[in-house]
Amino acid sequence: MPMTSHELVRAFTERPGYTSAVGTRVRAAESGTVELALERRDDLLQFSGLFHGGVIVGLADHAAGGAVTTLLPPGRTAVTVDLHASFLAPAAGQSLVARAVAVRVGATLSVATVEVSSVDATAEHLCALCTVTLRTVDVPDGAAPE
Amino acid sequence: MPMTSHELVRAFTERPGYTSAVGTRVRAAESGTVELALERRDDLLQFSGLFHGGVIVGLADHAAGGAVTTLLPPGRTAVTVDLHASFLAPAAGQSLVARAVAVRVGATLSVATVEVSSVDATAEHLCALCTVTLRTVDVPDGAAPE
Amino acid sequence: MPMTSHELVRAFTERPGYTSAVGTRVRAAESGTVELALERRDDLLQFSGLFHGGVIVGLADHAAGGAVTTLLPPGRTAVTVDLHASFLAPAAGQSLVARAVAVRVGATLSVATVEVSSVDATAEHLCALCTVTLRTVDVPDGAAPE
Amino acid sequence: MPMTSHELVRAFTERPGYTSAVGTRVRAAESGTVELALERRDDLLQFSGLFHGGVIVGLADHAAGGAVTTLLPPGRTAVTVDLHASFLAPAAGQSLVARAVAVRVGATLSVATVEVSSVDATAEHLCALCTVTLRTVDVPDGAAPE
Repeated sequence: MPMTSHELVRAFTERPGYTSAVGTRVRAAESGTVELALERRDDLLQFSGLFHGGVIVGLADHAAGGAVTTLLPPGRTAVTVDLHASFLAPAAGQSLVARAVAVRVGATLSVATVEVSSVDATAEHLCALCTVTLRTVDVPDGAAPE
Repeated sequence: MPMTSHELVRAFTERPGYTSAVGTRVRAAESGTVELALERRDDLLQFSGLFHGGVIVGLADHAAGGAVTTLLPPGRTAVTVDLHASFLAPAAGQSLVARAVAVRVGATLSVATVEVSSVDATAEHLCALCTVTLRTVDVPDGAAPE
Repeated sequence: MPMTSHELVRAFTERPGYTSAVGTRVRAAESGTVELALERRDDLLQFSGLFHGGVIVGLADHAAGGAVTTLLPPGRTAVTVDLHASFLAPAAGQSLVARAVAVRVGATLSVATVEVSSVDATAEHLCALCTVTLRTVDVPDGAAPE
Repeated sequence: MPMTSHELVRAFTERPGYTSAVGTRVRAAESGTVELALERRDDLLQFSGLFHGGVIVGLADHAAGGAVTTLLPPGRTAVTVDLHASFLAPAAGQSLVARAVAVRVGATLSVATVEVSSVDATAEHLCALCTVTLRTVDVPDGAAPE
């Protein structure tokens, strides 16, 4: 039985490595859309106590890859070719949420857009907009989700 | 006596937070240029054993901020408004090196370009080109380098 | 009586210069959103008969500036600092339509996203996604819409 | 006898269409580098008398395509997938010069960087930095340089 989109994205997210080390959680994953979150932690912040730009972009990048991969055939995934991030507001909240949508999926190239929001006790606000271009590749041997 | 560029960038890099947690080292910093490095570690990799895109971009972003800040008056620093990364080759090496150059420094907005290379025992090759636009701000209270 | 958004964007679009020379029409303009169009013409195409990338981006850029300017005080407008375009499909249609939305408007910096579609007799399809960062400036003397 | 790089880029530039309509001239073209120029004309300017962003980006885009195409096999060319432009200074001069360098050329994807300068009687200054990602394609039938 093939994996669901949610199982697939969890498998890529929870294996040992960067995404699990920073505490990435898969909140939702369907065909072409993924929602990820991670919690504030001292080692994810820049000098004034906001989430570091690298953490914001890393979360967006992984969400984009997930959103595209849910629409690819089994055994195929997507690696980032090009990434643009526009930072709209300080990421001062208790957690980050990234919502990715695949806007084009092709045999060779795909594009996803990602909205990253900063969430605190009472509200959520948009802190970054990202556009990610990805190239379709085979899942490397030994890296296949099980 | 004012801080040298190297002292200034080290102060921003080595305080507790993301940049020190990932092991960022300041290899060089002069007026308008910064060179940073970090070593391969399992928690910095993506699913096929390469440095994760978020780690590459996070290093570039910090290098860009450093390069611009060396040219700003004391008490001022720069936060990222916009970041573009073009990934040229897999980052499979033992370390990453980011070299940033400030190409424009203005009262309000600055731009830096950053080359990120992957380094192994025998060679170094370019793995990402980044362009970062930053806005000049006051160093927040409590975040000033000492 | 102040100008409406539609009058304001038409005034900026129809004066002599690039936007009028390429035939830009203002289809709609409200607070924070602008829709522009232009028709296929031989001098707007690249070597294989598609709209040239510069024309697509030029239309998006002007739409972004319009969308932001509708939300600024009279006498203020916005110039582009940074532009990212992701080309999703060939622009082979009879016309281009650009729809811009201001996603952040600040005293200094604003951001708009723009979808550009290629339109032919029977359908419209998305051909480019753009993100534009703009800086607020005074309308130059002699350039004020009348 | 195969075309030289200069002949190849001229052939793509001078055929009827956008690039010839705006007056693009090929100043130099070698393996992996191209230098283009165009002169100030009223129909290329924005509302305050500067070169329009679309014209700047269009010139950069064409220069990037040329720089990559000089390194591809005969019959192959490159179309833009993704374009980022950072505008550094107003383009107020009498002409624009774009200098493109191919930084990566692959079977599928290539990347070029482009510096665009504004030139007046006494000086030249950098007004935009662009990074362009391109996909290799066959030259369409009927569009081959002769």
